[in-house]
Amino acid sequence: MSLNTFGHVFRVTTWGESHGPALGCTVDGCPPNVPLDEAGIQRWLDRRKPGQNKYTTQRREADEVRILSGVFEGHTTGTPIQLMIENTDQRSKDYGEIAETFRPGHADIAYWQKYGIRDYRGGGRSSARETAARVAAGAVARAALAALAPELAITGYMTRMGAHGIEGPRDFAEVGANPFWVPSAQTAETWASYLDDLRKSGNSCGAEIEVTASGVPAGLGAPVYGKLDTDLAAAMMSINAVKGVEIGEGMAAARLTGEENADEIFLGNDGMPVYSSNHAGGVLGGISTGQDVVVRFAVKPTSSILKPRASITKSGQPTEVVTKGRHDPCVGIRAVPVGEAMMACVLLDHLLLDRAQTGGVRGEIG
Amino acid sequence: MSLNTFGHVFRVTTWGESHGPALGCTVDGCPPNVPLDEAGIQRWLDRRKPGQNKYTTQRREADEVRILSGVFEGHTTGTPIQLMIENTDQRSKDYGEIAETFRPGHADIAYWQKYGIRDYRGGGRSSARETAARVAAGAVARAALAALAPELAITGYMTRMGAHGIEGPRDFAEVGANPFWVPSAQTAETWASYLDDLRKSGNSCGAEIEVTASGVPAGLGAPVYGKLDTDLAAAMMSINAVKGVEIGEGMAAARLTGEENADEIFLGNDGMPVYSSNHAGGVLGGISTGQDVVVRFAVKPTSSILKPRASITKSGQPTEVVTKGRHDPCVGIRAVPVGEAMMACVLLDHLLLDRAQTGGVRGEIG
Amino acid sequence: MSLNTFGHVFRVTTWGESHGPALGCTVDGCPPNVPLDEAGIQRWLDRRKPGQNKYTTQRREADEVRILSGVFEGHTTGTPIQLMIENTDQRSKDYGEIAETFRPGHADIAYWQKYGIRDYRGGGRSSARETAARVAAGAVARAALAALAPELAITGYMTRMGAHGIEGPRDFAEVGANPFWVPSAQTAETWASYLDDLRKSGNSCGAEIEVTASGVPAGLGAPVYGKLDTDLAAAMMSINAVKGVEIGEGMAAARLTGEENADEIFLGNDGMPVYSSNHAGGVLGGISTGQDVVVRFAVKPTSSILKPRASITKSGQPTEVVTKGRHDPCVGIRAVPVGEAMMACVLLDHLLLDRAQTGGVRGEIG
Amino acid sequence: MSLNTFGHVFRVTTWGESHGPALGCTVDGCPPNVPLDEAGIQRWLDRRKPGQNKYTTQRREADEVRILSGVFEGHTTGTPIQLMIENTDQRSKDYGEIAETFRPGHADIAYWQKYGIRDYRGGGRSSARETAARVAAGAVARAALAALAPELAITGYMTRMGAHGIEGPRDFAEVGANPFWVPSAQTAETWASYLDDLRKSGNSCGAEIEVTASGVPAGLGAPVYGKLDTDLAAAMMSINAVKGVEIGEGMAAARLTGEENADEIFLGNDGMPVYSSNHAGGVLGGISTGQDVVVRFAVKPTSSILKPRASITKSGQPTEVVTKGRHDPCVGIRAVPVGEAMMACVLLDHLLLDRAQTGGVRGEIG
Repeated sequence: MSLNTFGHVFRVTTWGESHGPALGCTVDGCPPNVPLDEAGIQRWLDRRKPGQNKYTTQRREADEVRILSGVFEGHTTGTPIQLMIENTDQRSKDYGEIAETFRPGHADIAYWQKYGIRDYRGGGRSSARETAARVAAGAVARAALAALAPELAITGYMTRMGAHGIEGPRDFAEVGANPFWVPSAQTAETWASYLDDLRKSGNSCGAEIEVTASGVPAGLGAPVYGKLDTDLAAAMMSINAVKGVEIGEGMAAARLTGEENADEIFLGNDGMPVYSSNHAGGVLGGISTGQDVVVRFAVKPTSSILKPRASITKSGQPTEVVTKGRHDPCVGIRAVPVGEAMMACVLLDHLLLDRAQTGGVRGEIG
Repeated sequence: MSLNTFGHVFRVTTWGESHGPALGCTVDGCPPNVPLDEAGIQRWLDRRKPGQNKYTTQRREADEVRILSGVFEGHTTGTPIQLMIENTDQRSKDYGEIAETFRPGHADIAYWQKYGIRDYRGGGRSSARETAARVAAGAVARAALAALAPELAITGYMTRMGAHGIEGPRDFAEVGANPFWVPSAQTAETWASYLDDLRKSGNSCGAEIEVTASGVPAGLGAPVYGKLDTDLAAAMMSINAVKGVEIGEGMAAARLTGEENADEIFLGNDGMPVYSSNHAGGVLGGISTGQDVVVRFAVKPTSSILKPRASITKSGQPTEVVTKGRHDPCVGIRAVPVGEAMMACVLLDHLLLDRAQTGGVRGEIG
Repeated sequence: MSLNTFGHVFRVTTWGESHGPALGCTVDGCPPNVPLDEAGIQRWLDRRKPGQNKYTTQRREADEVRILSGVFEGHTTGTPIQLMIENTDQRSKDYGEIAETFRPGHADIAYWQKYGIRDYRGGGRSSARETAARVAAGAVARAALAALAPELAITGYMTRMGAHGIEGPRDFAEVGANPFWVPSAQTAETWASYLDDLRKSGNSCGAEIEVTASGVPAGLGAPVYGKLDTDLAAAMMSINAVKGVEIGEGMAAARLTGEENADEIFLGNDGMPVYSSNHAGGVLGGISTGQDVVVRFAVKPTSSILKPRASITKSGQPTEVVTKGRHDPCVGIRAVPVGEAMMACVLLDHLLLDRAQTGGVRGEIG
Repeated sequence: MSLNTFGHVFRVTTWGESHGPALGCTVDGCPPNVPLDEAGIQRWLDRRKPGQNKYTTQRREADEVRILSGVFEGHTTGTPIQLMIENTDQRSKDYGEIAETFRPGHADIAYWQKYGIRDYRGGGRSSARETAARVAAGAVARAALAALAPELAITGYMTRMGAHGIEGPRDFAEVGANPFWVPSAQTAETWASYLDDLRKSGNSCGAEIEVTASGVPAGLGAPVYGKLDTDLAAAMMSINAVKGVEIGEGMAAARLTGEENADEIFLGNDGMPVYSSNHAGGVLGGISTGQDVVVRFAVKPTSSILKPRASITKSGQPTEVVTKGRHDPCVGIRAVPVGEAMMACVLLDHLLLDRAQTGGVRGEIG
């Protein structure tokens, strides 16, 4: 019920504000004896780190993680793992103006209406900086998955940036080779030029991200309110600025007939089921089938833009807002490692849960 | 953590299988002194009830609800409310064949792989009958909302059936006047003819449903993992056959620029904020703003169809599946009242949570 | 967070009032493929059933349990198990008077102050009848434990009735042979005569119950707020009328020195640790050690007595209360099977949790 | 379900090991706008701090708390509050021996059996140092209670140290005037001499602590598994070394008759109920009545003693253990502020919960 916590058995509580002394996460429920050190976590954080190219915020955060508990002699002990990232580049002066003004499309007004107080510096708790803690937690989940389900692999990539989808065929070898994690070298060029223009005009754009997990054991997910896809939907929707989540066919499933949508089942050479297609996104009835688990989510455009927009002040005056600060023209880019992290956390959580529920014993086919 | 339970403070646990003696829900956390009786719940159940027209399954269930606890002299007492619906029309013989065979696109194989046992009669726990219990729980939530937030109104309707969206302008007066809950008389005719054809050919189709809540107080939702939209996404994704969930602009937010997406803020005559648009779907940073809360979800086509599809048997033999039984050609139709019920449960839950967190005190503007 | 629910993974939600149509429990998280039928549950309910001898309330309840869900062909399916017990002998007229009056020592006034409404018939939700649902849930837990930890055995017995403790040595063969579950034939006679006198004088008395579990695997319990003893303490304290809980040495541990209290450790023939004593009650640091788990709890005297006691009415008038109805002179007698049931539920819950956390792998000694 | 977390709405997750870089707690669910700063928390931590007199461990920890999140301009914001206490005086060399040996009565062996790995330095997670984080969390709870229930006052004190109870009448003015928090100057002298002897002989002793809360509003507590006394029992039992918990009359309730135990009810001058006695400890049916809430718990003697005790090593060899290090001869002394902190957390949690459940509206008497 802790509302800054997610997960059932592998539970992650993130804490911290954009411009406080530090942020981080408390990871509870990690199995013992998993190899884990700061370098292993840092590697994933570095993927999300801002300021790495001109397409992300120029805020320069070291984003150095420290393990404060739960690890002994390079292994998890089964006790809570506290991960702390100190905030080092906090130019709070940039935010003086928004102390009194609500940015359209931003959580400013909602936090004020709910709490009657808000840490307005950099968005406080609603800042995208919170996602650094998620990536750190995801690194812990990945370490545990590496031990428990070594075949499992998670890949995130962008499938749309504003007006542009992916051009031509997907080439996953390209994902790490461009700043947009897009599986297409040609598309990366188009997007680069598009985003340059947007940035120069002080505008921003949305993005669509897809995260795929292969090697997921069948049987993960607990009907009916802890379904694997339910938990994935919640995990992705909880990321800042996400407005839609899809599993497999997603919203397009509404357009299909039953005949089109049914993934036909055959027997593979190993006696395990193979499917003619994956409209289901690897999940049936909330339970993984062994097919790739495929999740997609949409990130809205950054609301902090240089374009003037009508708004109001805390004291009830009309005003016009132009947000200077240092902002991502497409915050969706940095959502790729975050989506991967959430996928890792949810899969580990359900893997552990499934051990509780079934002991990992499966119904046999054949 | 109970995985057949949803909600934080207003908690609903559904139980029961399609062809067991009964199904129902345990509703815990309803405030005391809310007027509630069986007739008031029945009214909502009747909306979802199958067999009411030729477009839904011809299974004839009375779906009569009994209140077994938690209500005294017509009012809730604050103790758990047990609602039971007996299963009366269980033609189990229809399901003999699927005991051994996995229907493509259905949860059969996943349940088997997870549990090594499944109540195959009518889909057992994965049957859409489970949603009757959700509607009953939603009726309790509505009763409590009527007492605590009398201005709040929830409306669900279909926005797409397979190949067809809504034609022409929306007329919400039409929602209750056609079997598809579609806000357009003309569209209802098109859909009727389309679905007739599908049904006759033994096929089925998907659907898109939108649920809107007006009169939602600002300040509901608890960042960052109990966001209002996170919980709505989970609630909708947990409904059988749902593959995508959108808040406000939804997946289309990926296509917008920040300038387009920003809902500009003005001051209304009553000194409260008014917005130029509602791309956000009434939720910013996970917190309601007072605008209409707008959720959309896609329901995949019924997988139980007469069209033959390749599959395998439990004993590992290839086979072809044709599902006879009595099935909805568009199960999405009956998902409309279910989506409304989930919206009611989530909003009540957050209204109660917000009382805990803030005592309902709000930040003042002006 | 559901406050009529206990357990982490094996979760039990009880529902129902003393004089409503039925009461029962929703059991979520039971592993699949556990043999279970109504007769197996009934056997345990019959132990708790009132009206079996002159020392318990003369209310005659059949206490017949029905399984409404979660079991298929004699085995659990992994879905929620709904157990219902209909109330058949509800003489509501007996309770007319207490609608307006608060019985001293009873929950009447507290429910009224909290909820502003209460089902006063027979204590409503605060009635000891709620414990029938716990015993039913405990029977499910026992069935699962029989499959997962066949060496585990749970024994409950009374160690004190009012003024009298156990006389002479304990003989556990006697536990089932007397109406007080006391391990001493001689003590049973003393208590019978003592309770007869109390009953005739319209008085009641308290009781102390001990529940022991042998064959508990080492390693159950999750520090630091899900310790095995923490959960046992909560489980026992949640039983009606319980005012104290002890693990092993219990409150007397305050009187000991470290030298006296330390259970010395030796190596058994099988290479496993054996202990010189069991002051710890089988739990160290919240984790089971493999020794017997020993819990004791005190049940206060029934507050519904014939002795006149000063009280007030709902309308604020002084009055004197004499409770007629049909009440247990020592409600603690029936708490023995309830304590056993709670022990079974907690142990199963932690056994499943431990599978999630460690996969059941243990640190080896030697 | 996070097993290093307690509380329903006001949720505290403690983390950290005795000899890691730091320990602390994540406090989620604190209401916004509560005045809070480090000095206010420090004040309570200083009460628990070791090394303040010769009766507690000579380990010298500054125990300086830092607020890392959730507080802005001296007020809580409603977001998670991260409190960190760095470990400064870690003489790990003291613990080399126990890396291989299990101390009798200590959690060493249980952690090893469960996790197959343990941070043996100073007991790691099972160290009493964990309770510093509880005291810090309790300070947050006190700050919120001061705002929401200003009449509420919590007092903890020792009622027994080993062989000695309190001599003569209780004088609560003395509680803060002696190192044992005992409400009796004369008793403090007896205990001082007794403990000196124990310490010199390398022995230790147990303790009994009582915590009382006055000014608790009626109506807190949520039947039946979130009863106020259930949660208090769990909270106290979760403290290191606690073996028994009592509410009001506690274990002695087993010895009473119904006539003796019934707290008679009268009407006070203000029209509110007053009671002739408080056997119930302020809780009926799990709900507070407005009387003082009284909890008692027993702390077992420190197991780290200089007296040689038989034990075994990790590699399965018999050995004899003499624990040198720096240990409390009566760890119960430092449990007094911890018990107070747990009381504060539980009461705040239920106060917030009650706002959710009933909106704080009460049934009126008269």
